[in-house]
Amino acid sequence: MKEFEMIRRFFTEQVIKRKDVLLGIGDDCAIVSPSERQNIAVTTDTLVAGVHFPHQTSARAIGHKSIAVNLSDLAAMGAEPTWISLAITLPEADLQWVEEFCVGVFELCEFYNVQLIGGDTTQGPLSITVTAQGLIPKAKHLSRSGAKAGDWVYVTGEIGDAALALKHIFNEVVVEAEYLDSVRKRLDYPRPRVLAGQALREYASSAIDLSDGLLADLGHICEASNVGANIVLDDLPISNALRDTVGLEKACEIALAGGDDYELLFTVCEDNKVGMETALANTGNTITCIGQINRSAKITSTLNSKSVPIRAKSFEHFASSTD
Amino acid sequence: MKEFEMIRRFFTEQVIKRKDVLLGIGDDCAIVSPSERQNIAVTTDTLVAGVHFPHQTSARAIGHKSIAVNLSDLAAMGAEPTWISLAITLPEADLQWVEEFCVGVFELCEFYNVQLIGGDTTQGPLSITVTAQGLIPKAKHLSRSGAKAGDWVYVTGEIGDAALALKHIFNEVVVEAEYLDSVRKRLDYPRPRVLAGQALREYASSAIDLSDGLLADLGHICEASNVGANIVLDDLPISNALRDTVGLEKACEIALAGGDDYELLFTVCEDNKVGMETALANTGNTITCIGQINRSAKITSTLNSKSVPIRAKSFEHFASSTD
Repeated sequence: MKEFEMIRRFFTEQVIKRKDVLLGIGDDCAIVSPSERQNIAVTTDTLVAGVHFPHQTSARAIGHKSIAVNLSDLAAMGAEPTWISLAITLPEADLQWVEEFCVGVFELCEFYNVQLIGGDTTQGPLSITVTAQGLIPKAKHLSRSGAKAGDWVYVTGEIGDAALALKHIFNEVVVEAEYLDSVRKRLDYPRPRVLAGQALREYASSAIDLSDGLLADLGHICEASNVGANIVLDDLPISNALRDTVGLEKACEIALAGGDDYELLFTVCEDNKVGMETALANTGNTITCIGQINRSAKITSTLNSKSVPIRAKSFEHFASSTD
Repeated sequence: MKEFEMIRRFFTEQVIKRKDVLLGIGDDCAIVSPSERQNIAVTTDTLVAGVHFPHQTSARAIGHKSIAVNLSDLAAMGAEPTWISLAITLPEADLQWVEEFCVGVFELCEFYNVQLIGGDTTQGPLSITVTAQGLIPKAKHLSRSGAKAGDWVYVTGEIGDAALALKHIFNEVVVEAEYLDSVRKRLDYPRPRVLAGQALREYASSAIDLSDGLLADLGHICEASNVGANIVLDDLPISNALRDTVGLEKACEIALAGGDDYELLFTVCEDNKVGMETALANTGNTITCIGQINRSAKITSTLNSKSVPIRAKSFEHFASSTD
């Protein structure tokens, strides 16, 4: 059997068979049949070795992450993930690598009932492009553009640990052994906030997932919504690992600027606050209110109730998404 | 303005605004709203420089081809193309290159009323992954698996010229000046048979687009349909350019084995022959009957009504599609 046929076989060996997939992998196209009352959310993200993950990252982690970052985009719109198309470019037909990669892909797909419906396997420098799709009840999708002055700014989970892991890998800091495993997991195995996103459909005025860093992504919401925001640095949800490793001040900088958190950042009006907090608690997600939207055209911050300059720089890399 | 922002701006400057696209480029996901009576066809293809096109290929041709090969997959299912997601990885932010690339992308999108709804721009070795989607009336899609013994085998257009162009580029043959332009166009600017595919929905028992070569792709139909086929070599639609350059015998070999034709190969039962021929003539596509499906498990060929061995080898490259 040719090696590429063996690789193709790995991708067909998935457990999930959705009823709305009429034709899966194996023809010129997949055929899907969405419900009549739902719109479809579509997102595409590419991961390039050495740009989006360190070269030494395990195949399983790369598989996990390539799916997770796309499910995170779907979560930010409030979509229920359904179908994945996966294009993988490999330097060589390394069957063991692909098998481990598929473990990472399929464990996340199975957890969220997502079916791999097609893709492409080509030879070249390692990169993975995933197009993920999801369903949303009509007129219920979240976007970046609905934040209004007075809305509260929330974030799920803790932020900054993925950036800390990168700094550890690049020998900029040393993370103690007791924290290293959990910090590395935040970088290699991000958990997309899929259920939180769906719960937010009824409550949030805007939402985005944290991929470029809190400051940059809050900037995207402010720009799209034509508002400003103030962040209360005292309230940033920072892990013990991050605080103990670099101290509070530097931890705030990393939490503001570091990317790859894949938490949800969202805004909620005063009237929806209690309902949202109850709904999110039911999904098992922790949330933290970190500031408030205002009418200014900028992002400011306070510490101990005093205005302080934002020292972190927005993270800008060539590898920017068009969506 | 940052360079990647300028690149992103190129991708938003398209003319096509479809009514079923509720949210286009600029948020975490696009939102589309398909009609209730239609299914969705989804396909993904990656083009890698040096693997799927020669390194010296123009940016415009690469843009055209990256869309064309995906629309060709949609055509093979009988789908009407609607939405494109485009992930492009570039060695550097070369604005002129991207502008020309976009010309190639958008001229094809505009012709077929296809909207670019999202994507990703990253830094790395040049490659392009497109996910294309299209609509098909429910239960009307074509597939590879419906061919039956007795069905006639047809192909649109002429085949082999793209493979001839590659041989010219690699100095294996010399194409005369009078033919060179048309032959290069078949390689660089393939025309997906979109209207032919839609017309075939009512008539064809199976269909596939010719990307791997006639013999390999007919093999895919035979395998999926559990049938065999005989090809009448006398009837292969070969251009004057191909015949005059390499002679008839070699021309047949190239037409059978060469890839990149992006014509449609399809099967039709006797009762649907006349209706299909009339419908296809109305789309402006030429078609040729090149053989017949049978109950054997193999592909054979005849020349001057005599059985001859098939000398061309099926084209197998690492870069194989999972769909």
